[in-house]
Amino acid sequence: MSTSTLAWQRTNDSAELRRVTIERRSLRADDIAVRVAFCGVCHSDLHAIHGATPHMSDDGGLVPGHEFTGTVTAVGAAVTGFAVGDSVAVGTLVDSCGECAMCRIGQENFCHLGPVSTYGGKDRVDGAVTKGGYSREYVLREQFAYRLPEALDPAAAAPLMCAGITMWEPLQAAGIGRGSRVAIAGLGGLGHLGVKLAVALGAEVTVLSRTGDKADDALALGADGLLLTTDDRQMQIARGRFDFILDTISADHDLSPLLRLLGLDGTLSVVGNPLLTGPRILELTAGRKKLTSSGTGGTKGTAAMLAFCAEHHITADIEILPSKRVNEALTRLEDGDVRYRFVLDMSDLGDREA
Amino acid sequence: MSTSTLAWQRTNDSAELRRVTIERRSLRADDIAVRVAFCGVCHSDLHAIHGATPHMSDDGGLVPGHEFTGTVTAVGAAVTGFAVGDSVAVGTLVDSCGECAMCRIGQENFCHLGPVSTYGGKDRVDGAVTKGGYSREYVLREQFAYRLPEALDPAAAAPLMCAGITMWEPLQAAGIGRGSRVAIAGLGGLGHLGVKLAVALGAEVTVLSRTGDKADDALALGADGLLLTTDDRQMQIARGRFDFILDTISADHDLSPLLRLLGLDGTLSVVGNPLLTGPRILELTAGRKKLTSSGTGGTKGTAAMLAFCAEHHITADIEILPSKRVNEALTRLEDGDVRYRFVLDMSDLGDREA
Repeated sequence: MSTSTLAWQRTNDSAELRRVTIERRSLRADDIAVRVAFCGVCHSDLHAIHGATPHMSDDGGLVPGHEFTGTVTAVGAAVTGFAVGDSVAVGTLVDSCGECAMCRIGQENFCHLGPVSTYGGKDRVDGAVTKGGYSREYVLREQFAYRLPEALDPAAAAPLMCAGITMWEPLQAAGIGRGSRVAIAGLGGLGHLGVKLAVALGAEVTVLSRTGDKADDALALGADGLLLTTDDRQMQIARGRFDFILDTISADHDLSPLLRLLGLDGTLSVVGNPLLTGPRILELTAGRKKLTSSGTGGTKGTAAMLAFCAEHHITADIEILPSKRVNEALTRLEDGDVRYRFVLDMSDLGDREA
Repeated sequence: MSTSTLAWQRTNDSAELRRVTIERRSLRADDIAVRVAFCGVCHSDLHAIHGATPHMSDDGGLVPGHEFTGTVTAVGAAVTGFAVGDSVAVGTLVDSCGECAMCRIGQENFCHLGPVSTYGGKDRVDGAVTKGGYSREYVLREQFAYRLPEALDPAAAAPLMCAGITMWEPLQAAGIGRGSRVAIAGLGGLGHLGVKLAVALGAEVTVLSRTGDKADDALALGADGLLLTTDDRQMQIARGRFDFILDTISADHDLSPLLRLLGLDGTLSVVGNPLLTGPRILELTAGRKKLTSSGTGGTKGTAAMLAFCAEHHITADIEILPSKRVNEALTRLEDGDVRYRFVLDMSDLGDREA
């Protein structure tokens, strides 16, 4: 009794996505069906398409997409939180065990049994590989959907569900607030939201970049300035300046120059490239530097992030493309040619027949 | 106008220390002369003797030793803090610039110009290579000497000046106190003091060890128990149990099993082997683990540590050997055959002629 919908799928040996028909499961009692309006294009999608993501399930038909907004089109018998017609947002996780210590505190991202990813995960009930938001319809447990605040534009809010929460979690874990001296390394899909969030939290924010071409953007986003990491003199002068550096750079890079910018007991949080190897312990010794990372967030943090964004009118700076241009979006993302996030408009896939 | 004294020195190509006569500088206005009574034998001494210590100055005649106690025998014209006959303790640093941000807050260990080490450093005035506490006399600026609390035994207190402060700093930086769940990995010269300090700070303390033979010692030192890191089942059950792990293991080892023992936002502080390379960032992501390290402390922390130890009657568990058995001590230390710190009694070097 599943229903079919259209989706953009990688098929076997090609990195190019093609439009295919996929099946969505019939609603379980605690499921909702969502008509996807907008889905952000995330760097993780690129990694997944290129087969570089560890621990990702694959049935040979990858459908990416884990930051989307849409409208509830049907609800299961036991659903209490949503009704048909509600605007919702969905992020990177769609299920977890619900019973372990991490699930109980709303950090389902650290579920001891492993949370279920929005795509490339394994459904906990039937074992099917989950297929993501590059599609017209999605079905998930209501617990992992969020009411989209009215203050937020549905297209520009979509990237909050992955890029946004990925920035929010480490900022919150580090206790960033008024007076914190924060640097954001890399001004892309993650970084530009990191700047907005850190500024709204009250921090003094500096953008770290290899080139100066985004200096105006940095100021426009609310940062106090841009520090050129390729300028030895600037780097020398800035030694020890920051309490916290949020490193969103996805390319391989040396962490040592960033560590030198941290003051006593400062923290470098590396979220852009989790496959990097850490530096020698010796480099953490001088100044008791801390090296950390985090991934996505749980339901508690995600809800808090959405409320904060609604209050401070924070969304992503986006370029909207019709979903049929998804391959162009992926290529341009790979080339760094986007300010700052592509969002696919899924309406070109049409509406499902009843 | 220097004066000569006896010392244990590594000469050129031999790892064996030999008794030699060395020169100590004439007192400058802010110098004190110390007759060394007891000097601890530290793992760093072994590294230095084997030439494995980066950035160490060497004039071909290494004299180790950077945790010692003794008696003031002379004071410079401008000395105000000490008088002849005072009991003092000296640690790993004997000078720093005094002007940078780190020196101004008593963290001279992070001096921007580099602090001067007790041995293998370069004197800031005359550029001479400093020679350590494996000798009968030492001369240093009074600012880097500490009054030895009367409550502390001079022999057992000597290791506090390196091993003790090396444990104190990370425990303080992590805010360890009542209710903290702390694990100490490795029960040696550092680790046994880490247990005593963490217990006295009010933490629940577990010793992590590859073998069970120190289980009774762990309890005697005040720990709640010993966790066998070679027992998969124990390690599985203990997943996520600790807020803070202080890793004092000097041999190369994998950090991943330790990281898995940390709870959400837990910190692994690696101080036993600063040359280890950190794990992949991915391993820090799950649970927002923090990896950090620290070395020695500054004058502020060292004074606080000594006061805390005096109040709680904390000293090292030591085995005293006459200094002429220094090579035996070094060999046994290398073999891990000491519970828990060798201290050399320097009185067999005799007293300097006036």
